[in-house]
Amino acid sequence: MPSLFRVGGDWAFLFYFDKMEEGNFNPLDLRRFVREVFESAGIPPADAELASDVLAYSDEHGIDSHGVARLDTYYDLLCAGRINKDPKIRLERGKASVATMDGDNGLGLVVGPKCNQVAMEKAEEFGSGWVSVSNTNHYGAAGYYPVKALERELIGLSMTNTSKGVVPFNGREKKLGTNPLAVAFPGKEELPLIIDMASSTVAYGKVEIADRQGKNVPMGWCIDANGTATVDPLAMINGGALLPLGSDENGSGHKGYCLAAMVDVLSAVLSGANWGPFAVPFAIKTGQAENRQVGKGIGHFFGAWDISGFQDPDVFKESVDAWIREMRGTLPLPGAVEVLVPGDPEHRAFEYRSIHGIPLDARVVAALVRISRLAGVSMPMRVS
Amino acid sequence: MPSLFRVGGDWAFLFYFDKMEEGNFNPLDLRRFVREVFESAGIPPADAELASDVLAYSDEHGIDSHGVARLDTYYDLLCAGRINKDPKIRLERGKASVATMDGDNGLGLVVGPKCNQVAMEKAEEFGSGWVSVSNTNHYGAAGYYPVKALERELIGLSMTNTSKGVVPFNGREKKLGTNPLAVAFPGKEELPLIIDMASSTVAYGKVEIADRQGKNVPMGWCIDANGTATVDPLAMINGGALLPLGSDENGSGHKGYCLAAMVDVLSAVLSGANWGPFAVPFAIKTGQAENRQVGKGIGHFFGAWDISGFQDPDVFKESVDAWIREMRGTLPLPGAVEVLVPGDPEHRAFEYRSIHGIPLDARVVAALVRISRLAGVSMPMRVS
Repeated sequence: MPSLFRVGGDWAFLFYFDKMEEGNFNPLDLRRFVREVFESAGIPPADAELASDVLAYSDEHGIDSHGVARLDTYYDLLCAGRINKDPKIRLERGKASVATMDGDNGLGLVVGPKCNQVAMEKAEEFGSGWVSVSNTNHYGAAGYYPVKALERELIGLSMTNTSKGVVPFNGREKKLGTNPLAVAFPGKEELPLIIDMASSTVAYGKVEIADRQGKNVPMGWCIDANGTATVDPLAMINGGALLPLGSDENGSGHKGYCLAAMVDVLSAVLSGANWGPFAVPFAIKTGQAENRQVGKGIGHFFGAWDISGFQDPDVFKESVDAWIREMRGTLPLPGAVEVLVPGDPEHRAFEYRSIHGIPLDARVVAALVRISRLAGVSMPMRVS
Repeated sequence: MPSLFRVGGDWAFLFYFDKMEEGNFNPLDLRRFVREVFESAGIPPADAELASDVLAYSDEHGIDSHGVARLDTYYDLLCAGRINKDPKIRLERGKASVATMDGDNGLGLVVGPKCNQVAMEKAEEFGSGWVSVSNTNHYGAAGYYPVKALERELIGLSMTNTSKGVVPFNGREKKLGTNPLAVAFPGKEELPLIIDMASSTVAYGKVEIADRQGKNVPMGWCIDANGTATVDPLAMINGGALLPLGSDENGSGHKGYCLAAMVDVLSAVLSGANWGPFAVPFAIKTGQAENRQVGKGIGHFFGAWDISGFQDPDVFKESVDAWIREMRGTLPLPGAVEVLVPGDPEHRAFEYRSIHGIPLDARVVAALVRISRLAGVSMPMRVS
C-alpha cells in the first residue's frame, strides 16, 4: 500500500515507511485480543466488544496510529485507575433532536459509540440528532462514528477536542489540539465518501517519524520553541508546536485555526468539558494539561441526518456515485498517478488487509507482548 | 484598517491595498440605495429589504467583495431575466428538524434568508434545524446567516457551493467551487466568534489583485493551465486553477478538498442542485459551467442549534468569553502584533465603518453610478 494520497485518515499509512514488519495479524483474532485485554482490565464484556470494534476500524482501514498501536495507553490508564471501567453515561440536558451527555470518565471507545447511538436514534425520530459529550476520553478514529451512521441510512458526523499541540494562528503557544472532524456519505454502487481529518497541517506522529529517520519535515508543519518556522523535527518536539491547517499567512493558516475553534467549541465548550489548552492529555506519564481545569474530561460532538428527510435515499446515493466518478475522472497533475476521493485510502487498506492481514511494526508488537503477559491474554495470531 | 489578520471573511480587506479611494459612503443610505435598486428591478419591497440587509452585512463588516461591489452583477442578471424576481420558495420534502427546499431560481439574497429562517424555526421547535436548498443563486457572505441565528440564542451554520474554480487534490481540472462554510457562537460580554472561510487556500479575487498590481502570488495558491504550481497570477487566470486549502501534499491539500466535498454534497447533492463542475456561474457573460445540468441552480445548506437544548445559554456564553480571552492571551509569533479570534476582523471593520462610513473604490463607485442611471435611483450619500 503506497502512500500516494492521504485524503481522510490523517494517520493512514503513518508508520508505513517507518516499519520493521513483524508480520501480519489476523483481523478477527486481533479483535478477540483487544476485547479480552479490555475485559481483563475490568471493562464489562459488552463494552469491551464495543471498544474493540472502534480500534479494529482503524487497524482494518489503515489508520495505524489509532488502532492497537494505542492499546497499551488505554490499558495503562485503566490499570492506573485514571479511567472509569464501568461508567454510568448520563443525559444532562436535552430537547428533541439535541442533548448534552456526561461520559462519567469512561473509555472514549465506549462513551463515543453510546453517545453516537443517541445521536443516530434522535435522527431517526426527528430527522437529525446532535449530542455534545463531556467527561470523556480519547475516542479512537473520528471516522468510525459517521461510518456507523451509514448502516442506518444516515449521514453521520463526529468531532472531538484533543490535548494541546497546535498554536492559534499568529501565536507561539500551544492552545488547541489537532481537533479532528469526520463526516461520511453513502454511495449506491460506490463505497462511501469518508472525510476524516485533523484541523492541523499534520499529526504529531509524522514529526516523530521524521525525527527517527533523521529527516527534515517540510516548512509549514511546525515552529520551534521560539516561534520560528522550522524544518527540524527535533526543534518542534523540544518545546515547539504544530501549525494549523494552512500553516502561515500565505497558506491561510487562520482557516485551520477556525476549524480547530469550531471543533473545540462544539465538543468541549458546549458540553462543559475542558477546552483549548485545558484538555486532558491522553498519556499515562503526563498529568493535566494545565493546573487549572475548566470542565470535565475532554469533549466529543456527534451528529446524524436522516437522508430520507431530505431526499429519496436511492436518488441521493446515485448522485453521490456520480459525484465520485466525476472527481475520479479528473485529469491528474503532472507526476500524480490519479485523483482519488475521500475514503479511497481507507477502502484500499481494508481490501488489502482483509486478505493479507494487519501489518504491525516491531514497537507495536512489543507493546502487545507486554500487555499479553500482564493481562494473561494470548497473543493474536499471525496470518500464514 | 491594516490587513494584519484575515481570520473569517476571506475577502475582508480584499481591496484595501488596491483601492483608489472614492470617499466613504453612509451605511444607512447605501442600504437605501441597494433596496431601491432591487425594487426598480422588480423585486417585491420586503424581499428587496432582505437582500439589502445581506449585502450591507458584508459592506459593514469589511467583506468588500461580497457587498455592493457585486450589486451590478445581481442587477444585470435580474434585468436579463436570468433570476426569478418573485420566487415561490417551496418545501420539497421534510421530517421534523430537516427539510429540502426549492428556491424557484430566486435571488440567493432572498432565498438564503428565507430558508435560513426555516432552519432557525425548526431549531426553536426541535432543538436543531437543517435545510438543504436547490434552485438558488449566489447568497452573499456565508457569515451573514449564522450571525442572524445569534439574535435568537441559536448557534448557526451555513454553506454554499459555488461555480468551479478549484481543483480536486492531485487534479489539474477545476471541478469544485471555493465552497465556503460559516458558523457563529455568541459570547456574553465579548462579541461573537464568527468563522467564515472558503475551502480553497484563497479567493480568486486575491489572484486578480496581484495581477493588477504586477505582483507574484505565494507558491501554493494556484496552478497554471498545465497543472504546474505557479507564482504568476496571469498564469492562473489564463486557464489555471486555485488549489484547495493546504495547497499541496506537504501542506495537506487533501484536507481542503475534503472540506469542499463536504460543502458540495450537503448543499448541492443532497438538495438536488448542480454540484461540482456543473454549478451555475454567478456572472452575466458566461453561460452554464458545462453543457450538462445535473440539478437545479446552485445549492445552500443552513443549520441551527438551540443552545438551551445543550446548556444554560448564559453559562455557554461565559465559557465562550473565557475561550476568547484565553486565545487572545496567547504570546504572538515573533513579528506578529497579536493573536486574534475568528470574527475580530469583522468586528473591527464594523466599528470603524460605523463611524467613518464605507469606503468604496473607483471601480465600484463607477458601477453604482451606472446602475443609479439605469434604475433611476439616486446615488448613496457620502459621509462628510
